Amino acid sequence: MADKDRIVEQKPSKIEEVEPFSGQLTAKGANETIRLLDYETAEMIRHAESLGIDTVFQRQSKFNGSSICIEKRCVFGTLGLCCKQCAMGPCRIRQDDLTKPYKINKGTCGAGAETIAARNFLMMVGRGTAAHASHAKHVAQMLLKTAQRRTPYTIKDPGKLKAISSKIKLNGEKSIEGIANNVSQSALSDILGNEEYMRFAISYCPIDRDLFNLGVVPKSVGHELLEEGHETSMGTMADPSSLILHAARLGLADIASLIISSELQDVVFGAPKPVSSKIGISVLEEKKVNVVIHGHIQMLSEKIIELSEEKEFVDRAKRLGAEGINIVGCCCSGNDMLVRHGIPLAGGNLEQELIIATGLVEAFVMDVQCIFPNVQNVAWRFHTKLISTMKEGRFARAVHIPFEEEFADEIARKILDMAIENFPNRDRNTFLPGSEPRELIAGFSVEALLESLSRLDPDDPMRPLIDNMASGNIYGIVLLCGCTSPKVTANHAAIAKELLAHNVLVVATGCAAQACARSGLLAADAAEKYAGARLKKVLRVLGEASGIDGPLPPVWHFGSCVDNSRVIILISALAEKLGVRIKDLPVAASAAEWVTEKATAIGMGAVALGITLHLGVAPPVMGSREVVALLTEKTQELFGGKFIVELDPSRASRLLLEHIEKARGRLGMAAEAIPVRS
Amino acid sequence: MADKDRIVEQKPSKIEEVEPFSGQLTAKGANETIRLLDYETAEMIRHAESLGIDTVFQRQSKFNGSSICIEKRCVFGTLGLCCKQCAMGPCRIRQDDLTKPYKINKGTCGAGAETIAARNFLMMVGRGTAAHASHAKHVAQMLLKTAQRRTPYTIKDPGKLKAISSKIKLNGEKSIEGIANNVSQSALSDILGNEEYMRFAISYCPIDRDLFNLGVVPKSVGHELLEEGHETSMGTMADPSSLILHAARLGLADIASLIISSELQDVVFGAPKPVSSKIGISVLEEKKVNVVIHGHIQMLSEKIIELSEEKEFVDRAKRLGAEGINIVGCCCSGNDMLVRHGIPLAGGNLEQELIIATGLVEAFVMDVQCIFPNVQNVAWRFHTKLISTMKEGRFARAVHIPFEEEFADEIARKILDMAIENFPNRDRNTFLPGSEPRELIAGFSVEALLESLSRLDPDDPMRPLIDNMASGNIYGIVLLCGCTSPKVTANHAAIAKELLAHNVLVVATGCAAQACARSGLLAADAAEKYAGARLKKVLRVLGEASGIDGPLPPVWHFGSCVDNSRVIILISALAEKLGVRIKDLPVAASAAEWVTEKATAIGMGAVALGITLHLGVAPPVMGSREVVALLTEKTQELFGGKFIVELDPSRASRLLLEHIEKARGRLGMAAEAIPVRS
Repeated sequence: MADKDRIVEQKPSKIEEVEPFSGQLTAKGANETIRLLDYETAEMIRHAESLGIDTVFQRQSKFNGSSICIEKRCVFGTLGLCCKQCAMGPCRIRQDDLTKPYKINKGTCGAGAETIAARNFLMMVGRGTAAHASHAKHVAQMLLKTAQRRTPYTIKDPGKLKAISSKIKLNGEKSIEGIANNVSQSALSDILGNEEYMRFAISYCPIDRDLFNLGVVPKSVGHELLEEGHETSMGTMADPSSLILHAARLGLADIASLIISSELQDVVFGAPKPVSSKIGISVLEEKKVNVVIHGHIQMLSEKIIELSEEKEFVDRAKRLGAEGINIVGCCCSGNDMLVRHGIPLAGGNLEQELIIATGLVEAFVMDVQCIFPNVQNVAWRFHTKLISTMKEGRFARAVHIPFEEEFADEIARKILDMAIENFPNRDRNTFLPGSEPRELIAGFSVEALLESLSRLDPDDPMRPLIDNMASGNIYGIVLLCGCTSPKVTANHAAIAKELLAHNVLVVATGCAAQACARSGLLAADAAEKYAGARLKKVLRVLGEASGIDGPLPPVWHFGSCVDNSRVIILISALAEKLGVRIKDLPVAASAAEWVTEKATAIGMGAVALGITLHLGVAPPVMGSREVVALLTEKTQELFGGKFIVELDPSRASRLLLEHIEKARGRLGMAAEAIPVRS
Repeated sequence: MADKDRIVEQKPSKIEEVEPFSGQLTAKGANETIRLLDYETAEMIRHAESLGIDTVFQRQSKFNGSSICIEKRCVFGTLGLCCKQCAMGPCRIRQDDLTKPYKINKGTCGAGAETIAARNFLMMVGRGTAAHASHAKHVAQMLLKTAQRRTPYTIKDPGKLKAISSKIKLNGEKSIEGIANNVSQSALSDILGNEEYMRFAISYCPIDRDLFNLGVVPKSVGHELLEEGHETSMGTMADPSSLILHAARLGLADIASLIISSELQDVVFGAPKPVSSKIGISVLEEKKVNVVIHGHIQMLSEKIIELSEEKEFVDRAKRLGAEGINIVGCCCSGNDMLVRHGIPLAGGNLEQELIIATGLVEAFVMDVQCIFPNVQNVAWRFHTKLISTMKEGRFARAVHIPFEEEFADEIARKILDMAIENFPNRDRNTFLPGSEPRELIAGFSVEALLESLSRLDPDDPMRPLIDNMASGNIYGIVLLCGCTSPKVTANHAAIAKELLAHNVLVVATGCAAQACARSGLLAADAAEKYAGARLKKVLRVLGEASGIDGPLPPVWHFGSCVDNSRVIILISALAEKLGVRIKDLPVAASAAEWVTEKATAIGMGAVALGITLHLGVAPPVMGSREVVALLTEKTQELFGGKFIVELDPSRASRLLLEHIEKARGRLGMAAEAIPVRS
């Protein structure tokens, strides 16, 4: 086990000892366990603590069960057996088979574990889908207004626009504006239309008759959310199977929403291509005006990047004593800026507070999702201007500059002004961790991949990929997705290393991709270090085809969490090419450290499409055997995909490998004994 | 205090003593308090207990805190300080100002009490609105399909249809089918359209510039739910004011949804007119085939009532030994059938299990909302066929006969067939409480009221109402609405009696109207018994004008909970006539025993329209001083309406009277000393 894969024993406020635990770095103190992503994180946590600033790591450790802390995680909530749906409640119950007669096994209305847990799960998927569909709506409106020449954006990739239009079977229009208008109207109608199947779902996803018959093909997102709200209200739906099937329908609506977002963003901003950059809190620069962009919707950030290079702003920054302007990313707005522009990443959901705690951030610009409200308490300690920009994501103690597509330039300018003017307010008491940022290669997309592959086989670009999968050079493909969790649990990097050693190609998105990047798995030398011998060979050939000096990294950063859509599109194309269903492919996914409800929505959609998905954190349904069975055995029977819950990363890797091995066997692909680490 | 207003001390399984408590009937045993609506309820609970059947009363009492029971109501959930929005949680926290340093005052993401409580409240309003909008969607679709001659329904009230069309400013169409098509399309677009203000909201509600400026005028329900889901997901909205304003917007969307449902139901089924009927479990008949209809959406029930009178069915029932078919109502499907057809009411949400426990129910037909899942456990003990009919409300152990407007006749026939065929399966061991059902008069509507009033002043029907309000003969109007609660709390009947004695006219809807009916407040003799002298005089005149032999009852049953819309329309008309805003009227509302999230949605909408609303059960926001202030002081400042929480019915009545007194004073209406009970 490498040096990095150790535990750090920590009494509150200082790291003292190290010992190994499930291949990840943690800090332990009296009754506390703090999960650390890397030594840089540890250093920053120590610094924040020294300033009396609490971060997600301490708050998590409090709930972990310090004996002096009164509130622990609620067991009812954890198991999914808490119901707050009416004023007779809140109710908290136990499973059906109680031995003690005075334990309560029904809510006051009589709802049992299966109804309560299934309803809770459906609501999680609903909120996740709402978040993604809201994102999709913003992007579709941006495209629509751009087509109407009402924004300062242009359509960078008209070819992709035409491809989308053809994919969703819109005909007749010839002009780019006309096509853009139709495509965006179609997307908007998918989100908030009346009673039609989602066009992006049925056009992009391999939805067969079975899924129609099961009733899991979504109408508009609005329709599905309306019914979800109705069904989960007290005294309406009490059939757990129907609730889980509705979750599957919402899951597919979620995937379609992701597809709308990624595809239409590509039209306006261009599809990502491989690009080199770096990750780490020390991408912040002491001598520059630092602007951090955090959130998920890439509209304003495009303009901030573009305008930050204008001489006017650079000169102003210099006049105020800075050497220039440094735009860095956080979370998925960060991933978006990375894969399209090579903007360095300061961190993900776990690091957001630590980034501010450096004291180096002049403007912390937030759009929506995964923005810990505690950033307000951290920023308050420094000169940092917190700027919220979307009406769905406001903060009591942030400046609100509402984003409107029409005025994107003006708004970006205003934010850059605020950041630059704030530079002289920076305190001298700043802090950067000692370690250098990690180098990485990111920016994979289906388009970029096909371009590389077409250099190997111009007539049939998918062929080299399929041939290598068939031969076992690529033993399988696993998507690592989802968030990074402060809980001590299965972790992305440990799983990635295990899979790579077994020649499994890893694609990664969102904070999962960042976690791999922090472990060096996206670096130029990572193929040599971590990939099995056969995979390494493939990566060398592909590196050459992609015009990179050396092999491709063995973990392909496919973008933000919304860009899971790209992986769905890739996998669907693979299945189509092989003439099989997704469930038959040697493919799986792992959301080892999932945090958000968005992850449950994507996950449920993926399972409905036949993907088997590992979760390293148990979803709050474990209190009902029936719901657990519905999400595992039943989904496998109906869709071919299922959830696997496994907290230990080694065992999780083993389960993913076994799933791939079985699929290979069924496809008649070389299912030789799993090779050992090269 | 009357005999009925006493407490019944009860050891589990038998009622032993009586003593007074806040003007309502309860049973008390070791560590248990059971709330009873009347002696009939008490008798049925005892019977159910003797059969080992648990009901909502026992389940409530378990949570009340028997010392042998392990789970009690969760304090965090009760206060609104529980968050289950992501897999870092669940988190449970305390208010900000903690003296003990190790209590947790932020969730793992850093969300504080104000964000968590406001988010929880918004989600409640969201689910409530979704339930009502889903109802509205069904009704609009029924009207649309009826206009297209695809259903067996007809348009019973074309005059009302034209009035609606004119109210929402749809012009151009002349044919009834054309108008019906446009009106229903407009309603559907209000529910799931893209980006327009809800037409039914801005046409029906007195929405002024202030409400537009505050951003609380809703776009489509789907849009508002999409943003609600997005905002409440982890790391998005962290501004409690914005969350509460969004709740107000959803509340107005909810009111508009109620209006769509009631108004379009009137078009197809006719507007209610005063009608005599009765209430009580003993409306079930031992010698007839009993069909109970429970839920909220009046589409199928219309057909069941209509067809149950066909000779074919009656003959079949007789051949099987019954004397006929007895259709009775439960909850708001019951209220709907009562106000339009005089169908007797077996009970409301609290009695649903007891109704089945008589063993006399051949078919228990359910649509959606407020259907306790425990009906499955009760019905299982008898021959009763549980039949679910809507896709949003399915039950693991019910026969599902999916309702479709096109086949309403066939489906109603099938259900009547099942009920009749089930009659011979009835066990001899049936039970009916000894008391006779209560007589009542119901079926008030704006139309029926205006018709009566126009007999007093044909040129200006509102004038007599306004004159009597101005003079103090009608001291004010209070709407009693919402559910009946198993919790021992403020109660409808006690409040109604207090208000009536002070010459306040009471209008009531939903289960609140039923609670008043069970206390005799809707009976022909109720005006004489309970109304103050001045109000009594008005009711006598109105009784005569309505062609009723004697005074009108002092509590006007305005229909189901959805028909709160009728009261909003009435109050809006009053305000318009007086040239004031709703907030200035001597009018208030009380949801003393609210249970469902639908109630929070209506309540929030009512407050946004300027209505002051008493709640007898604290909503789960009390853990945040800031959210409490937002829902009281701030809403009063912004809208003129606010929530009042008061658990004691006497004090609640006093607060409502004070509110009216102040309004009368401001309007210069005779604000004489509040008269004592006549």
